[in-house]
Amino acid sequence: MKPIKVGLLGIGTVGEGTFNVLKRNQEEIRRRAGRGIEITMVAARNTERAARLVGGECEVVSDPFAVVDHPDIDIVIELIGGYELPRELVMRAIANGKHVVTANKALLALHGNEIFAAAQEKGVMVAFEAAVAGGIPIIKALREGLTANRIESVAGIINGTTNFILSEMRDKGLDFSTALAQAQGLGYAEADPTFDIEGVDAAHKLTIMSAIAFGIPVQFDKAHIEGISKLEAVDIRYAEQLGYRIKLLGITRRTVIDGVEGIELRVHPTLIPTKRLIANVEGAMNAVLVQADAVGATLYYGKGAGAEPTASSVIADLVDITRLATADPEYRVPHLAFQPNQMTDVAIWPMSEINTSYYLRVYVKNRLGVMADLTRILADARISIDAVLQKEPAEGATRLDIIMLTHQTREKNIDAAIAKIEALDTVVGNVTRIRLESLS
Amino acid sequence: MKPIKVGLLGIGTVGEGTFNVLKRNQEEIRRRAGRGIEITMVAARNTERAARLVGGECEVVSDPFAVVDHPDIDIVIELIGGYELPRELVMRAIANGKHVVTANKALLALHGNEIFAAAQEKGVMVAFEAAVAGGIPIIKALREGLTANRIESVAGIINGTTNFILSEMRDKGLDFSTALAQAQGLGYAEADPTFDIEGVDAAHKLTIMSAIAFGIPVQFDKAHIEGISKLEAVDIRYAEQLGYRIKLLGITRRTVIDGVEGIELRVHPTLIPTKRLIANVEGAMNAVLVQADAVGATLYYGKGAGAEPTASSVIADLVDITRLATADPEYRVPHLAFQPNQMTDVAIWPMSEINTSYYLRVYVKNRLGVMADLTRILADARISIDAVLQKEPAEGATRLDIIMLTHQTREKNIDAAIAKIEALDTVVGNVTRIRLESLS
Repeated sequence: MKPIKVGLLGIGTVGEGTFNVLKRNQEEIRRRAGRGIEITMVAARNTERAARLVGGECEVVSDPFAVVDHPDIDIVIELIGGYELPRELVMRAIANGKHVVTANKALLALHGNEIFAAAQEKGVMVAFEAAVAGGIPIIKALREGLTANRIESVAGIINGTTNFILSEMRDKGLDFSTALAQAQGLGYAEADPTFDIEGVDAAHKLTIMSAIAFGIPVQFDKAHIEGISKLEAVDIRYAEQLGYRIKLLGITRRTVIDGVEGIELRVHPTLIPTKRLIANVEGAMNAVLVQADAVGATLYYGKGAGAEPTASSVIADLVDITRLATADPEYRVPHLAFQPNQMTDVAIWPMSEINTSYYLRVYVKNRLGVMADLTRILADARISIDAVLQKEPAEGATRLDIIMLTHQTREKNIDAAIAKIEALDTVVGNVTRIRLESLS
Repeated sequence: MKPIKVGLLGIGTVGEGTFNVLKRNQEEIRRRAGRGIEITMVAARNTERAARLVGGECEVVSDPFAVVDHPDIDIVIELIGGYELPRELVMRAIANGKHVVTANKALLALHGNEIFAAAQEKGVMVAFEAAVAGGIPIIKALREGLTANRIESVAGIINGTTNFILSEMRDKGLDFSTALAQAQGLGYAEADPTFDIEGVDAAHKLTIMSAIAFGIPVQFDKAHIEGISKLEAVDIRYAEQLGYRIKLLGITRRTVIDGVEGIELRVHPTLIPTKRLIANVEGAMNAVLVQADAVGATLYYGKGAGAEPTASSVIADLVDITRLATADPEYRVPHLAFQPNQMTDVAIWPMSEINTSYYLRVYVKNRLGVMADLTRILADARISIDAVLQKEPAEGATRLDIIMLTHQTREKNIDAAIAKIEALDTVVGNVTRIRLESLS
C-alpha cells in the first residue's frame, strides 16, 4: 500500500520535532498504522533553514497554500500558530478534501465550531490531540475512553510555564517576577509570556476539553480567565502551612443552580489539598483530573509542551487518520497495536539476566567485622552499595538487621553474592531480597 | 438508525454494572455513538436473578451459546471469567461474525494469540479495555495515544487488592495476614485470594500490555511472577526510612544485553522512591507509568476494579465498535466527542454564580476586636469558616495577616462580604481572595 502523504505547515520547534520523530520511528509507526506515513512537502517562511532541516527528502515551499492545494497531499499538519492565516489554510485544506492535524488551541477555541462543521460536511477529520496538554492523550481519553460516562468535571494543570513558575515560587520562596525571569532563562517561558501567565493558553485548552466533556460548542468568550501574575509569595507560604498548594487550574464542571443546569468554565489560581495526587504535579508537567459517574476519578499526567511530546500527539493523530480513514477492517485499530503481520518475536529475558537495583536485609550476629564481610562479598561481585541502614541493636541484643540498597546489577550476580552472604557464620537465616526501581 | 444489539454473557458484579450504566447513561451514550446501544439478551446461570436485574427488558437465557448463535446479536460481551468456556464462546461468536467485548484478562493472556488471529480472519473486533486496569483507558493510550513512540517500558500498579493490602501494612503497621483479612472483610479481596496476592492477575494484565507496547505475541508462560504473601512488615518500615514505598509492580521493558534485544516481563514487590507520583498511589487504586522515546513519561491513574469502573471500559469498547464498525465518515469518532447534531446549548455560568471555597488573606491593624468583626461579617453572609491562621505579629508590630479558609459559598456572596471587610477601618488595603477546590 502506498504511503500516506503529509504536508507540513510551519517547521518551528514542534514541526521539527514532528519531522524528526516521524523519521526516527518510521518503521515502528508503519508497523502500527499499516502503511507508511511520509512528510513530502513543507511550507516555511525561512525555506533555507527548512531545507537544511528536512535534508532534501521533501519539497520545501514558502507558500503554505501551495501545500493545502497540492493534489498529492492526503493530510495537512498545521503548526503555524495564530488565528487568521491558520484558519484560512485549514478551511481551504478541508474544502480540498484533506484531513487536518493541528496543535493550534487558539484556533480551535475561537473557530472550532466553524472548522468542525466544515470538516463534517466534507467527511474529513480534523484531529487536535496536540492542542491540549501536549503529549498526554487526554482528548482521546475524554472522547473515546470515557464514552460510557456522564462526565461531571474536568480539572487540569494544563499550562507548563505557570506550573513551573508556581513550583519555583513555592520551592525556593521566590516572588513572581524572579520566578518568571528564571523560567524565561530556562526557555520555559517566552519573551512575551502574557498568554501563559495570564491564563489565556490554559483557557483555550479548557474550552476545548469542556466542549468534548459535555457536548457543547466551543465558547472561549464565556470563559473566566485569571492568571498568576498577581499571586504573592506570602500566599503560597500560608497555603502550604494550611496543607494546600496553589496551582493554576482550569476547571469545567456541570452544575445545577435552582434547577437550571449550566457549565462552569474557569481558569484561576486555586488552592488544592497537598495530599491530592494532582497537587504534586510539579515543574513544567501537566495533569488532567476527570470526574465521571461510572469510572469515578481518573488522572492523566505527562509533559504538556516541548518539541517531541507535542510531536507524539501530532503523529498519533496521523496514525489515527491513517487507520480510520481507510475503511477496510484490516486497517482499523489492530488488536495488539501493531498490524498482525508486523509482530516480532523478540525473546522474553529470564530473570537471571535482568538488571535492577536491590534492597537486601541481612539478619546478623552483633559481632565485629560483619559489615566488612558483607561489603567485601558485594565488592568482589562488583555490586556497589547505594545506602546502608544499620539498626542500633537494643541494649544487650546479640542480633541486628543490616539493610543495604545496591546500585544496578544483573540478578544472577546478586543471587550469587547472596548465597555467599548466607554462608557466613555471622549471618542468621536467609537474606531478604526485594527489587528496587528508580523509575526516573 | 437501528440500535446496535448486544448480548451479555454473565451478569455478576461487572455485568450488572454494565447493564446499569448503559441504561442510566443511554441518552449520553447514544449522543456520542451515533446510534443506540441495547443489551437485548442475557445469559446467566441463575436466570431468575438475572430476570429480576434486567427487569423484563431483555431476553434471559441459561445457555450462553444461544446468545453467541443468535442472528440478531451484533456484539457479544463476555463477562463469565475463567478459561475454557469463555474461549469456546468467544471463538464461536467470532466464527458467527460477531464483535466481542471482554474483561477477561486470563483468557487473553493465555489464548489471545488464537483469538485475535480468528477475529482478524473474520474481520471482527475483539475489544478488551476492561481487561487491564479497570476503568483506566490504558489499552487505548498504549494502542492509539502513543503510536508515535518507541515505547521503552511500562510499569504498573495493576492489582487493587494487593495495593490495598500494602497500603494498610504501611499505614497501620499491620502484618500481611492481618491486612489480607481486613481486605477480605471490606470486599477488596476474594475468599480465595491466591490469584491476586500471588501476582497472577497482575501478570495477566502485564502480559497484555507488553504485547501492545512492543508488538510481540502474548506469552504469559514467560512471565516472572512473585506475589506479596511473603512480604514482612519490617521491610516496609525500613524501606520507608530509606525514602521508598513497596508496591507490587508489573514491569515490562525492552533491554539490550550484549547486543541482543529482549523483553523484561516481571511482576514482583518493588521499592519505588516515595517522591515518584506512582509511589503515592494508595488503597485499591491503579496506575500505569509508560516511558516512551518521544513523549517521555506519562501516567494513567484511576480505579482498577469494581462494577462501574470496569463497566466504563466495557461500554467504551461498545461505543468504539459502534463508531468504527460503521464505516461511514459520520460515524467515525466525532470531533467534539458527541455527534454534531447532538450538541446541547447548556449555558456557561457567570462567575458570580459559581459555588466554591475561598482562601482569604486580610491585612489588619493589631487591635482588639478585629477578628470578631471579620467573623461577624462572614456569619451574616452565611459563609462558614473552615480554618483560620493568624500569624503572631513581630514584637511591637502594629499590623498582621489573618488567613481564613471558608466552606463553599456562591462567589457573589463572598465578594459582597469582602467589600464589607475592606470597609472596616481596621483593615489595610484589599483582601486577597484565592479560590479553593478540594477535588475530592
